[in-house]
Amino acid sequence: MNKDQVSKIINDPVYGFITLNKGILLNIIDHPFFQRLSRIKQLGLTYLVYPGAHHTRFHHALGATYLMKQALQTLKEQGKDISPEEETGVLLAILLHDIGHGPFSHALENSFVKNINHEGVSQLFFNELNDVFGGALDDAIAIFNDNYPKKFLHRLVSSQLDMDRLDYLKRDSFFTGVSEGVVSNERIIKMFAISNDEIVIKEKGIYSIEKFIIARRLMYWQVYLHKTVLSAEFLLEKIILRASSLLKAGENLFVTDAIKLFLSNDIDENKLSESSVLKSFASLDDYDVLSCVKNWVFSSDKVLCKLCEMLVNRTLPKVRISSTPFSKQEITDLRNKHQKKLGVNTNDMEYFVFSEDMENNAYNPKKDEIKILFRDGTLKDIMDASDNLNIRALSNTVKKYYLFAPYF
Amino acid sequence: MNKDQVSKIINDPVYGFITLNKGILLNIIDHPFFQRLSRIKQLGLTYLVYPGAHHTRFHHALGATYLMKQALQTLKEQGKDISPEEETGVLLAILLHDIGHGPFSHALENSFVKNINHEGVSQLFFNELNDVFGGALDDAIAIFNDNYPKKFLHRLVSSQLDMDRLDYLKRDSFFTGVSEGVVSNERIIKMFAISNDEIVIKEKGIYSIEKFIIARRLMYWQVYLHKTVLSAEFLLEKIILRASSLLKAGENLFVTDAIKLFLSNDIDENKLSESSVLKSFASLDDYDVLSCVKNWVFSSDKVLCKLCEMLVNRTLPKVRISSTPFSKQEITDLRNKHQKKLGVNTNDMEYFVFSEDMENNAYNPKKDEIKILFRDGTLKDIMDASDNLNIRALSNTVKKYYLFAPYF
Amino acid sequence: MNKDQVSKIINDPVYGFITLNKGILLNIIDHPFFQRLSRIKQLGLTYLVYPGAHHTRFHHALGATYLMKQALQTLKEQGKDISPEEETGVLLAILLHDIGHGPFSHALENSFVKNINHEGVSQLFFNELNDVFGGALDDAIAIFNDNYPKKFLHRLVSSQLDMDRLDYLKRDSFFTGVSEGVVSNERIIKMFAISNDEIVIKEKGIYSIEKFIIARRLMYWQVYLHKTVLSAEFLLEKIILRASSLLKAGENLFVTDAIKLFLSNDIDENKLSESSVLKSFASLDDYDVLSCVKNWVFSSDKVLCKLCEMLVNRTLPKVRISSTPFSKQEITDLRNKHQKKLGVNTNDMEYFVFSEDMENNAYNPKKDEIKILFRDGTLKDIMDASDNLNIRALSNTVKKYYLFAPYF
Amino acid sequence: MNKDQVSKIINDPVYGFITLNKGILLNIIDHPFFQRLSRIKQLGLTYLVYPGAHHTRFHHALGATYLMKQALQTLKEQGKDISPEEETGVLLAILLHDIGHGPFSHALENSFVKNINHEGVSQLFFNELNDVFGGALDDAIAIFNDNYPKKFLHRLVSSQLDMDRLDYLKRDSFFTGVSEGVVSNERIIKMFAISNDEIVIKEKGIYSIEKFIIARRLMYWQVYLHKTVLSAEFLLEKIILRASSLLKAGENLFVTDAIKLFLSNDIDENKLSESSVLKSFASLDDYDVLSCVKNWVFSSDKVLCKLCEMLVNRTLPKVRISSTPFSKQEITDLRNKHQKKLGVNTNDMEYFVFSEDMENNAYNPKKDEIKILFRDGTLKDIMDASDNLNIRALSNTVKKYYLFAPYF
Repeated sequence: MNKDQVSKIINDPVYGFITLNKGILLNIIDHPFFQRLSRIKQLGLTYLVYPGAHHTRFHHALGATYLMKQALQTLKEQGKDISPEEETGVLLAILLHDIGHGPFSHALENSFVKNINHEGVSQLFFNELNDVFGGALDDAIAIFNDNYPKKFLHRLVSSQLDMDRLDYLKRDSFFTGVSEGVVSNERIIKMFAISNDEIVIKEKGIYSIEKFIIARRLMYWQVYLHKTVLSAEFLLEKIILRASSLLKAGENLFVTDAIKLFLSNDIDENKLSESSVLKSFASLDDYDVLSCVKNWVFSSDKVLCKLCEMLVNRTLPKVRISSTPFSKQEITDLRNKHQKKLGVNTNDMEYFVFSEDMENNAYNPKKDEIKILFRDGTLKDIMDASDNLNIRALSNTVKKYYLFAPYF
Repeated sequence: MNKDQVSKIINDPVYGFITLNKGILLNIIDHPFFQRLSRIKQLGLTYLVYPGAHHTRFHHALGATYLMKQALQTLKEQGKDISPEEETGVLLAILLHDIGHGPFSHALENSFVKNINHEGVSQLFFNELNDVFGGALDDAIAIFNDNYPKKFLHRLVSSQLDMDRLDYLKRDSFFTGVSEGVVSNERIIKMFAISNDEIVIKEKGIYSIEKFIIARRLMYWQVYLHKTVLSAEFLLEKIILRASSLLKAGENLFVTDAIKLFLSNDIDENKLSESSVLKSFASLDDYDVLSCVKNWVFSSDKVLCKLCEMLVNRTLPKVRISSTPFSKQEITDLRNKHQKKLGVNTNDMEYFVFSEDMENNAYNPKKDEIKILFRDGTLKDIMDASDNLNIRALSNTVKKYYLFAPYF
Repeated sequence: MNKDQVSKIINDPVYGFITLNKGILLNIIDHPFFQRLSRIKQLGLTYLVYPGAHHTRFHHALGATYLMKQALQTLKEQGKDISPEEETGVLLAILLHDIGHGPFSHALENSFVKNINHEGVSQLFFNELNDVFGGALDDAIAIFNDNYPKKFLHRLVSSQLDMDRLDYLKRDSFFTGVSEGVVSNERIIKMFAISNDEIVIKEKGIYSIEKFIIARRLMYWQVYLHKTVLSAEFLLEKIILRASSLLKAGENLFVTDAIKLFLSNDIDENKLSESSVLKSFASLDDYDVLSCVKNWVFSSDKVLCKLCEMLVNRTLPKVRISSTPFSKQEITDLRNKHQKKLGVNTNDMEYFVFSEDMENNAYNPKKDEIKILFRDGTLKDIMDASDNLNIRALSNTVKKYYLFAPYF
Repeated sequence: MNKDQVSKIINDPVYGFITLNKGILLNIIDHPFFQRLSRIKQLGLTYLVYPGAHHTRFHHALGATYLMKQALQTLKEQGKDISPEEETGVLLAILLHDIGHGPFSHALENSFVKNINHEGVSQLFFNELNDVFGGALDDAIAIFNDNYPKKFLHRLVSSQLDMDRLDYLKRDSFFTGVSEGVVSNERIIKMFAISNDEIVIKEKGIYSIEKFIIARRLMYWQVYLHKTVLSAEFLLEKIILRASSLLKAGENLFVTDAIKLFLSNDIDENKLSESSVLKSFASLDDYDVLSCVKNWVFSSDKVLCKLCEMLVNRTLPKVRISSTPFSKQEITDLRNKHQKKLGVNTNDMEYFVFSEDMENNAYNPKKDEIKILFRDGTLKDIMDASDNLNIRALSNTVKKYYLFAPYF
């Protein structure tokens, strides 16, 4: 093997270059399970609002792995003992943390499988890949599941300041062009220290953390919960729901084999853990789904056809937002009002007019607090450490109610 | 209509914001023909090498329109007379310049339609849309076809320094992360002047032009003609070729209606100009194609199945490059050598082992020269104006020969 | 005059290019009063902490002028009537808004002149230049002083969202490398509207404004009020104070004529308004001051010598920060403790050990509120418009107390 | 010492953060000899053309040190053996490589000392500091002087691809805003390999090297040899020359002690190597020089006064450029023509009207060639390796002749 092949350099517009050494990491990346992530958009249908947002789970996984390398280097320079095996373990854990995502990521998270979220599916993939690679993922699985003795390694994979979050905020901000969401990853990571087996932030990094919390909140309301993005994604969810009900009713519908399996049956965690079913899930991606949607424009089912037309031609449902719930009466009235115009049955109007609520708190002290390490050795929650900004206010949950309809 | 609706602001990671006024431009963007471009990648399968390269023709068209607005402003500030109608015309011309691209852009340019390239298809779309919008595209069409009296307007749409090129070099460089290809669009446009109804460059801009020519060349060899990109794209072409020959032979194959039309028949310019056929073409995008490819992995045709597996799992053909042609003997030997291993017929080996040649000259003085305007009013070709760099050397055509095979 | 000379293009790392048309603006820039700003650092001694922060008032003035051009274009595109004369007036007003700054900007704002701040000095320069240019600055002066009928023009020069602030936050963030302070100027300006003759922000811009307020606050605590920066700047102030008291006492000191005038006398607004004194002030810049400081290292006055050594060799006073005032006793104790070590008289210890307080509120609703314009036409203060972030908390004044000493 | 003090993090707008570990490096940075570099501009008077170009030798030295750390990491990851002592040595060598620069860097390189360039002065400082730090710089000096056994270490400090060049091209491009000069430092360094004890570039890096050579050439003609920059810098040289001749003639002139020493005497290498003289040199920086120039505006010597006025008020000499030398007759004619207008003696006209020539070859194969390492192990000069671009053409020396005069 010549020198050039010791490592692979991947261009990344966000970080410049991502260097990966030959070995288990590159082998995993070459596996079809992982390659499939290059056909799953990180932000689902967000590109309908932010035309640059076509970046993929594949790219995000590489980026988070890059950040993990930076974090490990920072901690090792501080004299923290991390063995080569632990290093590989935590890198694999972050590389595969999103392997369980299905088509259009969060948008369809509950559409193909029931009673299991993407983290649960990731676990199944971890186990399957561990079999394929002869146990090489043992440490990674322990770290991912927080069963590894050095707890801080898990925190790098999953916590308020994990490499997942640090990468996706920056990457999503980069590709959407929403510069308000830019996060100073590099500075935050350089401020990492370990205290009590947890990742904490040195005092000097306090402003970067405040900025991170603000940026996260901005990204939520400006991108992740943008009303037009939600409109498109709920529309897609309704489409899958309708197609599933038609298939279950025995209707003939253009559909790929893999999709048929998931829409004609209720696949839960138990079923999905069968190797062949998991492989079918692994064959799903954005391409099958959107290809079906485009074909369903010609479906004989009026509801399905109309919903699909709306998505393909981007004539999305209109949205109203409120800080209080919309009344059942208001929804019923809207359904009745538009029923004739749309030419669908009253009981099918729930596909077109419906309400949802969304909530976000920029900082959640209950789940995983962010702690600041002061020079004198004391630790404080960022809420208490930040004397100026009312981070506490940001930790309150904000709930918004959305009403969707083709027109009002 | 309230004030907010006078214009639409679109986030663009490359230029920050693209502002478009309400009217014909936004109406065209909302049309399904144009919306479809958001499902066609600008760089086909390049994302298999550069994971950020998922940007679309939709985004490129908006970017080129943005640059056109900058160029018009520069020229108007110099006192050049450009009417509002001409402005709309040239903006529409650039917005729609790539409307004729099909799935995966250049990679499949000759796979679905015969004897007509994407510019030809664009013409058909221009005419169709002109009918839809009641003649609103008359000026745009004249400018696009170089039939408009003010010749410089066409040059902004199509020439060595048109808005198309200025945008795609910068955008492709941005999303691939190949920073060597970054072009100083803004400076080049600020150096525009008009002489003899042509776009020329002021003396001060000479270094930016040199840089532009170098950057273009770098992008060719590092991205557009990257051997792994070519490998993937030729593989996809072979897949479509095989599927077409199977369909024409009456084989049963999972396929969408629109694709079937184009693969079971020879569609030429004449046929495509029929409105219904054009509409079918307009329904094609990357999603149908890749969705079919994924299904064809389970095809009973061994050749098709194998080719599709290679693409889906990214086990691409290996490539050798040479400055002289590969001999027929070498190719035949390779085919014979691998035939048994692949388990396909000898005459099907041309799908797996084949040679292609590619050429590029960074600057083509014969087609559309770049002229420098000196302070004393004289004009010189950039080749003569640049006293230091041997631009002349860059105008020589460089031809490279590629040999593809699953392994050597 | 040939075409190239219609305008001047200036490279700016922050905005790319700043284009200025020939005429009064470029003539003012060429005037020695303005050229002098290229020898006055925007951020005084901040470069001792952030080594990139050598940018000048000259550069900031050009940048703010660039933003003003963007703002005018936005407002004109909305149909707002702004005459060419008003345009020139408001551009001149912003170009010259900081012309009254002396050496090291804010650091020495009260050291050379008494009872007049830099805005007051700017007024004197405005008048002087108006004489030189035959009344060409009449509109600019009216706008600068808020005597112009269209009040919104003054708001572009001086308010919570003026071009001054938008430029300096971005520019200071850029040159210090403190990326948390980056402001989305472009987006904020695109969100400008006029209501009741004031600049307001469209609803869509609400997140950008929140970000702006946060960024401003971060820049205050991380840069403008950074303890080491303050340490260096108070040290410089003490040096000038000491030199002044020596000169007033008739001591012989290496000093340039212009500095001598200001340190040997008490120059107030009245005195400064004399043309010859103003010209002397206009000859002062960072270079004279630092050159003197370097020479005073060899002064026979021990206090001056020691203070200058500390600055030149960057052995700056240490700093303690507290949220409550430091007691007189603590300060006296420190002075007594170090007096012998420093070898200076007790009553000179105030040069070495002293306390100061600093305050900042990120958003000041009393001074100039930021109003959000909703789609239904209502206006709300950003504090009320922002339902999530507690902007109100940021409007509370935060006061910090600093204690400086060579060592503790 | 607490953990925070293990290292120092410095914000750098170019690279984000520069982390330096406590120890000899930070001690050297704190030394007055090094601190002085923060008062010497990297690009002399270039800020008169590019207003952002106020960055300093101090900043460049830190940047080059940062790159050195990247290079060492790349080489160590390839398995190259580099001891901690060698690492410190080569980091010190690059940190101090420019320590010998005087005020305004290259502009006055021959004005204060004779028969010794800045590298020679650096050597004297290296030795002086080695005494101060008890021999801690032994390795650094050996590496700097190319006396260290591992030759590649010297190459990292001084060669066609040394850290000096890589940093200054990028930094100068960044601060001037000349984006054409941007160099992909990171990519180039990642392509480093060692062959025959030399730094060579892996095949994949060939385009980056081409881009580097082009960028270097662009920076030369657009920045380093920009005619207005040259005009200002030659003007400053003439000013120092005049002041020196006046001082030597015994004239009374406002001047600091340190400057007086260097302008009243001929200081050569021998003299400069005396510790006290070197210390005097170390007290010189941009501030003394420009402060003197500003005072000399009021000098009774008409020549000096006029020259200084031109610089302070930026009414710089006009420049003509030619590819052939200007004739003596032309120069004499110009001198005679303007003599009366300027009111100076004929023999003093050489201060106002004079010719200089400048040359640049973007790639110099004779000095230190850049070698490309191919996968098969062969090495080729970049001129031969690059089949497309005529790098050979860029290696030809280009000479330009400049004629300076107050007006033509």
